[in-house]
Amino acid sequence: MNILVQLAYDGTEFAGYQVQRGQNVRTVQNVVEHGLRELHRAPVSTVCAGRTDAGVHAVGQYISFHTTHTGIPADQFAAALNSHMPQDVRAIRSCAVDDSFHARYSARSRTYRYYLYNAPWELPHRRRYAWRIPVVPDIDRMNEEVEEILGTHDFTTFAARRDTESMVRTIHVARFTQLPGGEGVSFHIQGDGFLWHMVRSLVGTFVDRERRRQFGEPPTEPVTTLLREKDRKFCGPLAPARGLFLYDVAYP
Amino acid sequence: MNILVQLAYDGTEFAGYQVQRGQNVRTVQNVVEHGLRELHRAPVSTVCAGRTDAGVHAVGQYISFHTTHTGIPADQFAAALNSHMPQDVRAIRSCAVDDSFHARYSARSRTYRYYLYNAPWELPHRRRYAWRIPVVPDIDRMNEEVEEILGTHDFTTFAARRDTESMVRTIHVARFTQLPGGEGVSFHIQGDGFLWHMVRSLVGTFVDRERRRQFGEPPTEPVTTLLREKDRKFCGPLAPARGLFLYDVAYP
Repeated sequence: MNILVQLAYDGTEFAGYQVQRGQNVRTVQNVVEHGLRELHRAPVSTVCAGRTDAGVHAVGQYISFHTTHTGIPADQFAAALNSHMPQDVRAIRSCAVDDSFHARYSARSRTYRYYLYNAPWELPHRRRYAWRIPVVPDIDRMNEEVEEILGTHDFTTFAARRDTESMVRTIHVARFTQLPGGEGVSFHIQGDGFLWHMVRSLVGTFVDRERRRQFGEPPTEPVTTLLREKDRKFCGPLAPARGLFLYDVAYP
Repeated sequence: MNILVQLAYDGTEFAGYQVQRGQNVRTVQNVVEHGLRELHRAPVSTVCAGRTDAGVHAVGQYISFHTTHTGIPADQFAAALNSHMPQDVRAIRSCAVDDSFHARYSARSRTYRYYLYNAPWELPHRRRYAWRIPVVPDIDRMNEEVEEILGTHDFTTFAARRDTESMVRTIHVARFTQLPGGEGVSFHIQGDGFLWHMVRSLVGTFVDRERRRQFGEPPTEPVTTLLREKDRKFCGPLAPARGLFLYDVAYP
């Protein structure tokens, strides 16, 4: 039976999602596969929708794995797994899926959110989950620029590494939203896939452009030029991992 | 010179705000007064706007203290203090105030917020800062009931202890608000003052009434009756500390 599980985790104390062979570090995949091994009394290998970096969180990560365990109904795998995992990872829901389903390759789109706020000093309860920026962002102006990344583009400028695979991705939604009650801003982005460091590079770039405008050194190139250059030199500073959440993954 | 400082803290690793004589526990007041002692090379005693319980957070706690330190401008006390405090407490702003100003007695009103959300399992990144409840709350229905506590009432039913002082308080604002992006609900309450456990008792009661309605055992007494009884027997279960934030304090 093929099982799909939605995972949520606090990335603060993980060296990222993926198992790192030969390195003695704590990863989400390690913790989840350890839980599955406890349940199955045998190794179980999993695939995930998006391999998040160290410090990045999730409320909608998805994994899939094949099981021969007959004692646990598909929708009870979440509960069973939770009893073998620490509090900073939770299985939220589980269900049976087609044998051909694959948490990464079957995904139609992924949604990330990034949280920002402005304050004179870092707010302690947000220090693990948001990025404090030095300006009050002008959301309307930032959203005007953000529209330029919608659609299908080569995102080499905003990727940490030039891989052999295609650097072209399609972005369906990208938008900064003011949160109520003075709680800052969230950036919501949905696309068919994201390159390594792409969301944090985009957030870092848009915040840096806003900072420059407010500090009297406005950016010279429009966002379309940054994209066209296909060169990381045109990317702003990387936004920190702690503000980023893998929020959801859409499957057919 | 009399100094007012806005404090923010993550209450998770504190045994509350107030120094507890003779007990070897970590409190916010201990940490702040330790920082002030380092700056002054002498003990400095502080007063605060609201003594929060263990696990309760703040983004708008205020303290005031008298200083004879001549080397630090009033608006630089926040920065100076931060260099002598741990990351889970931050001084956000500081300013000079009249000699007669007192962080508790000069306060005109206090605002608290409480965060709730519904999910099948606790979300790891919210486990220190929100309360997971077992129902999807009907905000409109809850707000209809919440209106009954607006104005001036004796809140004995919703207090943990019957003190000799008056149990009468005036509530100016009390409202549940749906947060965007499926992030749950916040309860916003502002009043001239709050009794011990009063906000958590109110939240616990309103959530319990909603849970009862959804599980087919609707509450029989209206909220006005609960208030009139002046008896803690009529109070619902106490909501956990982790969802509560001292959000702001208003001064003349």
